[in-house]
Amino acid sequence: MSGNLFNFLNLSPSMFDRLINPDNVAVVGASTNPKKIGYVVLENLKNNGYKGRVYPVNPKGGEILGYKVYESMEKVPEDVDLAVITLPAELTVKIFESVARKSRFVIPIAGGFGETGEKGKKMEDEIRNIARKYGTRIIGPNTVGIYIPSTGVNTALVVRERSRFPGDGEIAFITQSGALGLLTMDSVSMYDVGFSAFINLGNRVDVNENELLEYFGEDKKSKVVIMYIESFADGREFMKVARKVSKKKPIVILKAGRTARGGKAASLHTGALGGSDAVADGAFKQCGVIRAYDEIELVDYGRALAYGRPVRGDRIAVVTSAGGVGVVTTDYIESEVRGIGMKMADLSEETKKKIKEEVVPFASVENPIDMTAQASDDDYDGVLEALNEDENVDAILVYALFQTPLISEKLVDIITRWHRKGKKPLVVGTIGSDFALEMMKRFEKNRVPVFPSIERSVKALKILRERAKILDYLKEVEE
Amino acid sequence: MSGNLFNFLNLSPSMFDRLINPDNVAVVGASTNPKKIGYVVLENLKNNGYKGRVYPVNPKGGEILGYKVYESMEKVPEDVDLAVITLPAELTVKIFESVARKSRFVIPIAGGFGETGEKGKKMEDEIRNIARKYGTRIIGPNTVGIYIPSTGVNTALVVRERSRFPGDGEIAFITQSGALGLLTMDSVSMYDVGFSAFINLGNRVDVNENELLEYFGEDKKSKVVIMYIESFADGREFMKVARKVSKKKPIVILKAGRTARGGKAASLHTGALGGSDAVADGAFKQCGVIRAYDEIELVDYGRALAYGRPVRGDRIAVVTSAGGVGVVTTDYIESEVRGIGMKMADLSEETKKKIKEEVVPFASVENPIDMTAQASDDDYDGVLEALNEDENVDAILVYALFQTPLISEKLVDIITRWHRKGKKPLVVGTIGSDFALEMMKRFEKNRVPVFPSIERSVKALKILRERAKILDYLKEVEE
Repeated sequence: MSGNLFNFLNLSPSMFDRLINPDNVAVVGASTNPKKIGYVVLENLKNNGYKGRVYPVNPKGGEILGYKVYESMEKVPEDVDLAVITLPAELTVKIFESVARKSRFVIPIAGGFGETGEKGKKMEDEIRNIARKYGTRIIGPNTVGIYIPSTGVNTALVVRERSRFPGDGEIAFITQSGALGLLTMDSVSMYDVGFSAFINLGNRVDVNENELLEYFGEDKKSKVVIMYIESFADGREFMKVARKVSKKKPIVILKAGRTARGGKAASLHTGALGGSDAVADGAFKQCGVIRAYDEIELVDYGRALAYGRPVRGDRIAVVTSAGGVGVVTTDYIESEVRGIGMKMADLSEETKKKIKEEVVPFASVENPIDMTAQASDDDYDGVLEALNEDENVDAILVYALFQTPLISEKLVDIITRWHRKGKKPLVVGTIGSDFALEMMKRFEKNRVPVFPSIERSVKALKILRERAKILDYLKEVEE
Repeated sequence: MSGNLFNFLNLSPSMFDRLINPDNVAVVGASTNPKKIGYVVLENLKNNGYKGRVYPVNPKGGEILGYKVYESMEKVPEDVDLAVITLPAELTVKIFESVARKSRFVIPIAGGFGETGEKGKKMEDEIRNIARKYGTRIIGPNTVGIYIPSTGVNTALVVRERSRFPGDGEIAFITQSGALGLLTMDSVSMYDVGFSAFINLGNRVDVNENELLEYFGEDKKSKVVIMYIESFADGREFMKVARKVSKKKPIVILKAGRTARGGKAASLHTGALGGSDAVADGAFKQCGVIRAYDEIELVDYGRALAYGRPVRGDRIAVVTSAGGVGVVTTDYIESEVRGIGMKMADLSEETKKKIKEEVVPFASVENPIDMTAQASDDDYDGVLEALNEDENVDAILVYALFQTPLISEKLVDIITRWHRKGKKPLVVGTIGSDFALEMMKRFEKNRVPVFPSIERSVKALKILRERAKILDYLKEVEE
């Protein structure tokens, strides 16, 4: 239905530019109480460096955080791109028309709508009808709203001292669950992972995942779209949009509620029905969507696809300074059971000769290439150069292990250079604590796909291989 | 063969007490160069607070780090429990007899032995024969040696500023790969995970995994034994020992080289042949060994088993404040494909009533119990109390998510109390960055099994269920 509405209003996807980068924001229900969402949203705008005009609205008037407070939406001196309503559900409905008539986008934060029963569903109908009257679009209700690192718009309430928000990046994140989304972003902030946008759909009375997917499909900044979805607003429309977007950029979806019991939990959570998982799986394949199964895979795959290149064949070369890591990696690459069912490359004789004679005489030149604890930064450089010239190699997994004496921080730059200029797609694995974490942040800053365990590194390769297959498939179907 | 030698010498496993907690240590090849292992071992002993007597040995004499240096092993004033030889392979062989005759245990660190070919194998025979003559036992060669947090013995060379060593704990770690072992310990130091001992077998000319497994099986401090193994020294002996130990404490093994190509890589790495993976799998089942597939599972499972209790049935109750986390968890618990194939508990009517009426009226009382972002510490306490009384629940997975306003650090104490005194085995999941990490360290300190993702938390439950089944099986076979 939302798909039809979208067509009916003849809106362009680029209208979402005004949501992502609003000229001005009204906060309806602004509060002086630092624990209330009506304060936190204003605090977020101030602290995140939001550069547009801010209009707090509260009948009491006055000033909050240096912003002049307006007694009603009517008194706000101009129409706004975005209005955030931080009031409880019934109050939200009551003042909704006064807000909608002056706003392009409205985010009603409150829960207590459709997820609680019939009465709530009626309230949703009410605000939807008002919004249509004015051509205003709604995100939510029952949502933590949106977080846009580049423009400083952040409507989410979490305890700042116990949670981190990520910086700017190229990953667009659309989620039906606000909490899961915020937790996931907090978690990957440990590696300084960046996002282009975070949007929590909530009860989805108006804007749904399909319009947003189409928008981020066109958005130049976003290199990948990741989604947490419990149910699709309009499956047919989704497939149409996903297929179109997949040709341009990868889509990764964590589809929750894939078991009967999980589906039941999802219906209690967001009030929507999920449908058969086998159907979802088939649909994803047809429209080129990559599937993730948990919050770790969702962002790992997003990062792999945003920073890495599609892998055009199954033959992987592995470079390590720890023999055991090479063995376990080999198992994971070759095994179908606990592994990705790809192949260890058989290196050409020339590559082996080059590595053995010119680069690292003490290394094992069978793939996995084990350079031992004697490996230096330069050794890595030489081995990566040799592998980049080998026609038997489709992709490289290189372990950057910083614990041995002849390795330095420069290894990050060396690997980054091969990632950017080498002929082969490359994935980096690293294992360690504080120092490894710092180096991961540097790789992340350089947009090199890096992962903190053997399994996660290998799975990233699988996903880059899958992306190449998807592109081939979509092209084939088109012809 | 080593098993026979073990019997022949009529040594008790408790002899390894002198390796773990030596009265005195000789460092043969002591050096004043801080980059050399002959210096680092002395530095480790000093910095880790090793309390025994230390005898550096170097023909030059003098003093290193305040320790008097002896010109030869002959001049060391007493026999030693442990001698670490930090010299190259050929020199190690040359002076080996002078060391072996005065030492209970010798650790020759150098590579360049059996793993390099026939000549190296002969050198191994030579030191093995000398050791036998004196009843001296060898760990290695080609090893990073041992690390014992509680006694301060640490023979491993890594760059301190780029690597962390874990603290004291109840996990015994036996590994065939030194580097993989050190990397893994560095990695979990992020959560302050502790170890009772770390022993790198190296080329295994004498002491092998079977004797050590038997020792740690008896060791009161170690609650679990985790092992990285590429090949077994004596498979038959291993099964005998493992079966005996499994009855007392859990064994987790990462058996690498499980694919043909992985096996080949392993043979190049440690020079040993792995054998069929199907055979290993069957053998593990028979002797109650739990299998891990990578470095993350190895320690996760070790921690789950060291701190958690066996789970006696398939019915899991899940507590969360984030609905989406509950849905994904439900999928992982119930699914056979990407999941553990267990069951979500059907809570009794009484439990539901208790939770709804007395504890958290706003929560979803269907399992997963979603307490929403309004959850408080006390709500968790009440819900855990109710679940502990429910006969339909075999174990509890509780998510401690610290990002919402009414949760505090006290939640760690509340959950710890239910872990210790509750009727049901309990696993904790958490998702986040800096603050979550600090809370994970507290859970770890309290020996509560805590994991930083949905999948890892759920897999810990599976392993605790597997442990219960193993205990039943071993008992049944015995009767």
